[in-house]
Parts: sequence; structure tokens; C-alpha cells
Amino acid sequence: MILLTGFESWGKVPSNPTEELVEELSGDGVAGEVLPVSFRRAGERIEELIRELKPEAVLNLGLAPGSPVVRVERVAVNLMDARVADNDGFRPVDVPIDPQGPGCYFSTLPTREILEALRVRGIPAAISYSAGTFLCNFVMYRTLRILDLLGLRSPAGFIHVPYSTEIAARMDRPVPSLPMDLLREAVEVALGVISSASQS
Amino acid sequence: MILLTGFESWGKVPSNPTEELVEELSGDGVAGEVLPVSFRRAGERIEELIRELKPEAVLNLGLAPGSPVVRVERVAVNLMDARVADNDGFRPVDVPIDPQGPGCYFSTLPTREILEALRVRGIPAAISYSAGTFLCNFVMYRTLRILDLLGLRSPAGFIHVPYSTEIAARMDRPVPSLPMDLLREAVEVALGVISSASQS
Amino acid sequence: MILLTGFESWGKVPSNPTEELVEELSGDGVAGEVLPVSFRRAGERIEELIRELKPEAVLNLGLAPGSPVVRVERVAVNLMDARVADNDGFRPVDVPIDPQGPGCYFSTLPTREILEALRVRGIPAAISYSAGTFLCNFVMYRTLRILDLLGLRSPAGFIHVPYSTEIAARMDRPVPSLPMDLLREAVEVALGVISSASQS
Amino acid sequence: MILLTGFESWGKVPSNPTEELVEELSGDGVAGEVLPVSFRRAGERIEELIRELKPEAVLNLGLAPGSPVVRVERVAVNLMDARVADNDGFRPVDVPIDPQGPGCYFSTLPTREILEALRVRGIPAAISYSAGTFLCNFVMYRTLRILDLLGLRSPAGFIHVPYSTEIAARMDRPVPSLPMDLLREAVEVALGVISSASQS
Repeated sequence: MILLTGFESWGKVPSNPTEELVEELSGDGVAGEVLPVSFRRAGERIEELIRELKPEAVLNLGLAPGSPVVRVERVAVNLMDARVADNDGFRPVDVPIDPQGPGCYFSTLPTREILEALRVRGIPAAISYSAGTFLCNFVMYRTLRILDLLGLRSPAGFIHVPYSTEIAARMDRPVPSLPMDLLREAVEVALGVISSASQS
Repeated sequence: MILLTGFESWGKVPSNPTEELVEELSGDGVAGEVLPVSFRRAGERIEELIRELKPEAVLNLGLAPGSPVVRVERVAVNLMDARVADNDGFRPVDVPIDPQGPGCYFSTLPTREILEALRVRGIPAAISYSAGTFLCNFVMYRTLRILDLLGLRSPAGFIHVPYSTEIAARMDRPVPSLPMDLLREAVEVALGVISSASQS
Repeated sequence: MILLTGFESWGKVPSNPTEELVEELSGDGVAGEVLPVSFRRAGERIEELIRELKPEAVLNLGLAPGSPVVRVERVAVNLMDARVADNDGFRPVDVPIDPQGPGCYFSTLPTREILEALRVRGIPAAISYSAGTFLCNFVMYRTLRILDLLGLRSPAGFIHVPYSTEIAARMDRPVPSLPMDLLREAVEVALGVISSASQS
Repeated sequence: MILLTGFESWGKVPSNPTEELVEELSGDGVAGEVLPVSFRRAGERIEELIRELKPEAVLNLGLAPGSPVVRVERVAVNLMDARVADNDGFRPVDVPIDPQGPGCYFSTLPTREILEALRVRGIPAAISYSAGTFLCNFVMYRTLRILDLLGLRSPAGFIHVPYSTEIAARMDRPVPSLPMDLLREAVEVALGVISSASQS
């Protein structure tokens, strides 16, 4: 069982493609969960899910508005620094996620293999070294922290996707995008690489 | 007969999607032509084609590296100002295309209808008010100028497309893109709108 | 007498540096005027000023949010296409500025000399081929149109400036900027080139 | 004694403002050092300097081409991932800086106070959470690692500066910049805050 998470919409984002991706890819060895854009609630839910499911691997998804490519994140930092409030009205500034935790965690997914597999399939992708300091970084850090505290060795990490082309076509300013079917294929490719790596 | 033109590659551009688009969409009422990235040769060829074919409409295509959306151009200016030399080594700076021509021509295509038709089909698009001062603007201006001089009322104009996703996946830096099948659909949609408008 | 115009603030722009620039550089052969961000009122005011002052030259200034350099505009197009309403609530879409006017006017200022003079003074600058389709393009077109209709040969044109560094330092997101004293020097340099050219 | 480092030029960068900044601000309690753009040599030199000088604080400077503001870095990651070779021809891909070191170090400078002091002085600035994975991140990590291994509690961190306006004025494409005197003031302000914090 691989745990796959996405996010609901927030702020000015008209629609978050990771919500749909998680719904479509759930089932068949994948437990999907759409997380709230709330530090407190997302943090609690991630912990519950990991304790309950003891997943073989965790792949967190999020939207990177403005990114033209799929970004395979490498690093989660122990920091919350929000330019806007989350959906609960909470806006932490320069606060550690876990005062007892290390400064950062690296993704334990096979990031290079995922990158190569994506590009071979014709999906533009890059390794990224910062998942920001808002909910995406938070969920990546929390996931790796909880796995660490529980002594679980399941690989985990985060992938940022661009806007979907379908959403971009309805926006009133030009934004980079990739079609939903390519975003879905990207997540499937990543899940495939993670699955193979876990079994070997 | 609609004349549809694209361009071969130039400079650091690894591959120009308009070359493939023109080849694929030729035939069946569409005369396709891949133009050289040469002010002199492209200018001569455009004139020959228009004199010979007397097309009902002209749609020129070009690549806009860095654009995240399909750009329907509105204006061609009577200027050549090249930051790099063309494929013949010619690099005009601040030179009129035609000293006898007007300062600019507007697209005579139904640009708003094309825009709306693209967006309805889920293709991100925008109206653009500058086609630059290199070959794309040149071909748009030359086409409209020749039609004007010949007294032909065929509508003509230019559409810029982003990099194709297939090319973007092989580039070593993140660039915005749209898949080839969506670019092809965009051109088909534009040709359809142009065709309907010409017949009405 | 050179007519120098700027604009008041509009939309989300916290402060428009051209307002201050016009106030500081008025007097001593320069008639300064801060225009309203209103198509109707700015158009009327420009006409009054030109009829009344019969200026030897006109330099219109405007803010280009997001531009990192001073932009010497080359082309004004006969089009209004506003993504937001002006300060009177007017939002024209794809409407000609003057149905009797030509498709575009070129700047009649010595744009290359201004560009070179700016760069020699260490001020980053570029020639631009689109002043947009909002108030800036409108005022440039209107100015050149009125001069044309009145048969005046006074050179006229438009310069876009970036945000001032002083404003950028108070904004909550990173924006390119140049300090007010450099923006002032840029306008003084341009006025100097225009003055010399007019007298020769 | 505060150790202040900058970098020589590399790759396509025409001139690195931190070289000049370090030279100008050396002396009077500041030991300046221009580091080579070489992982091996910069790493060795940083270690020598810290062992020898036992500085009260370390401020590393670097150029962030394309950044419109001064960036106060918060995080250095234990990774080298170079898109181009360094000046010795070395191009590490996804290699830890120190296999024994932690995943990351946070800046131990008073980053928020520096940010506020800069903005109060009218200097556009932002906190940044990624110093990249090339020489800048490397020097920041190495500095914090060596201080850690030596048991020194001297605060240390990194500041990225934009291109200088003087350099930008000579470049053939538009790039964001701030004038050298403002960059110098930015570093002086940062040194002042660091100095006060060290003494309290």
C-alpha cells in the first residue's frame, strides 16, 4: 500500500489538480487522501494515516503555481513561514515545524530514477531543492518526521505539479501548465518507480 | 486554399514545432510551407506563394520560446531589429521592412473568435500586441503588405505557439510547453474559425 | 518648452514614480503634468496641453511594473484593450483609439540616441516595441495623433520606468527596481538628448 | 573580526559584484576574502581562514543572477548538484558536501533583524530558503560545518545580491539590478546588525 496525498484549493488558486489526481489514482494498492490546507489538520491527518496504514511508501503531491515542469522535491526544511494564512487563518512566521526535529529531511524516494523515468516518457521534470515554507514543505517534513519517529523505513517524498492546462485555459493571465492526462501519467510513472524500488 | 506557414529551427532552439505542424496539416485545402529563418529568402518565398496560390487566407505560425500559452498576434510593425543574426548571417538593426509601407498592419484574421474557440477547447491562449522584431513579425508584416499591394482581401495573421512538451522534456532547463497534439488542435481550431469566417 | 507627462497611481500599484518625477523635473523649460488614469480625461488633457503649449517636444512617462530596465518605447498602436478598468471604471476591449487614425505611430524621439546616452551613464535600458494596450500606449498614441492632426513636427514619445527601489523595499514580494535618483537621471538624460536634437 | 567572503566571476557572468564588495569593505574589523569558484579550493580556503582567524562571525556573499532583491539565506543543504562545471572543471551531481554532516544547517545570523534593517534603509530584501546547490550553498554549508566541528559559536550565514546596476547597464538583455552603492550599504547594514548582535 502506497499512501498518496494531495491538497484542496487555497487562496487565489481556482482549482488544485492534485485533488483530482489523488481521487483518480486511489485504489489498487494506492490509498489516496486529499489533505486540508491547514497546518494543524494536515499535520494530524498525516500522522493518523501513517500510524494506521503503515504504508510501504508515501508520495505527497502539491501544486506549484507558475512552475512549467513537474518538480521532484529533494529537501524538506524544519520551518513554517507563510506569506498568507492557511484555510484555518493560521499564519506562522519563521517557526519550526518540530522543535525536536532535525533541520531538514531529504526525500527518501529514488528521486533521480523518477526524474529519468518522467523525462523518458516525454514529461518535462526537474529536481527541486526547495518545497517552499508553506503547506507542501510542511507535509513533506511531517511525513518524513513521523516515519523517522516510528522507526519505519518506508520511502517518502514530495512531487510538485504545474497548473493543469484545463485550468490554465480558464485563467485570465498566461500561466505555464501541463494537461491533466500528462500530470496523471507523471504520478503513475512516479508510483511505478517507487513500487519497483520498494520491492527490490 | 489556406496558406499555412511555419519556420525551420534557428539559434539555440533545439527544434521548432511549427515545422512539424505545417507538415502534418498540409493537404485538404491547406497549402503548407516551412520558411527559412532568413529575412531575404522568407520574404521572397512569401511573395511567390501569395502570387502563385492567391490563398483565401494566410495563417503564419512561429515559435515563442518562453511563452506558456498560444498567442494570437494582433499587430505587425514595419521594423526589423534582430538581437541575433538570421540563418544567412544578416542582422538588421532598426531598419524598416518596407520603406513605402505603413507603420504597422493589424491581423485581418478574426482574432477574438480564434481566442474564444481555443479557450473553449481547453487550450490556454491570449491576444498578443507584439510579435517581436525578428522573423515572425517580418513574415506577418510581409504577408499583409503583399496582400495589400496585390489588392487581395484574404484575411491573414500570425499565431505564436509555445515549445512542445516533447521538446521541453529533453531540455536541461525548465521551460513552459504544451503537447504537440494540443498545438496541432490549436492550429486546426484556428484554421476552422478562419475557414468559416471566409465562407460567410 | 518640453511637455513632460506622468501618471497618478492605479489598481494595485502602491505608488507611481512618474508622478514624483514629473513634479521634480517641472520648470526650467519643462512643463510637467500628472495625467489621470482615465482614457477620457487623459485624452482630453493631452489635447488641451498640446494646443495650448505647442511644445517643442513631448516626453510621456509611465510605470512598467515588473520591468527591470528603463524602456524606450518605439511604437504606439491604435488600440485600447484593458484587462482592468481605468480610474473612471471604463474598460475598453479591442477598441480603436481613433477610428480615423493610422494603425500605429512610431516614436519621433531619437530613441537610439536616448538608449545609448542612458547606457553610457550606467542606466540599464532597452528599446521596447510594445507599450501595451492600456493608458500608456493610449497617451503615446494620442500625443502623436494630435501633433499629426495639428501639423506640428515636435518630436514625441514614451519612456517606461521600473518601480523605484524605495517603493520596492516596502512591497511584500520581490520586484525589480531602480532608485529614484537613477530614474530622475534617466529622464534628465532623455530630456537632454531631446533638447539637443530639437535645437540642431 | 568578522570574516567576509565573496566570489570571483564564473561561467557567463561578466562580473561578480561580491568581489568588489569584499575588497571595498575589508579592513576595520572585517577580514575580506575573494573565494575561487572551485568546490575544492573554496572549501579548503574557508577551512584555513576559520581555523586561522577564529572570526567572531562569518558573512558569505554571492551573486544571484536574476534576483531583483537582496536575499538573506536561511538554509544550506548537504548537497552539491552543479548544472555547469566549476572553474576547475569539477561538476558534482547529487553528491553530499560532507557524508558525515547533517542534512542541512540553518543560518545562525539574525536573519529577520538583517531583513528588517535592510528594508528600513530602503533596500529591497527577502528571506530565501534555498541557496541553490552550487558554490554559494557549498560555502555556506562548509562554513557552518567547520564552525560546528571546531565547536565555535560564531554566527555565520549567507547573503545573495543581485547584479549591480553598473553591470546590468552593459548587458545586452534586461536583468534586475541594484546599484553598487546600495549593495555596499546592504552589506554594511548586515555587518552592523551582526556586530551588534555579537556584542550583546
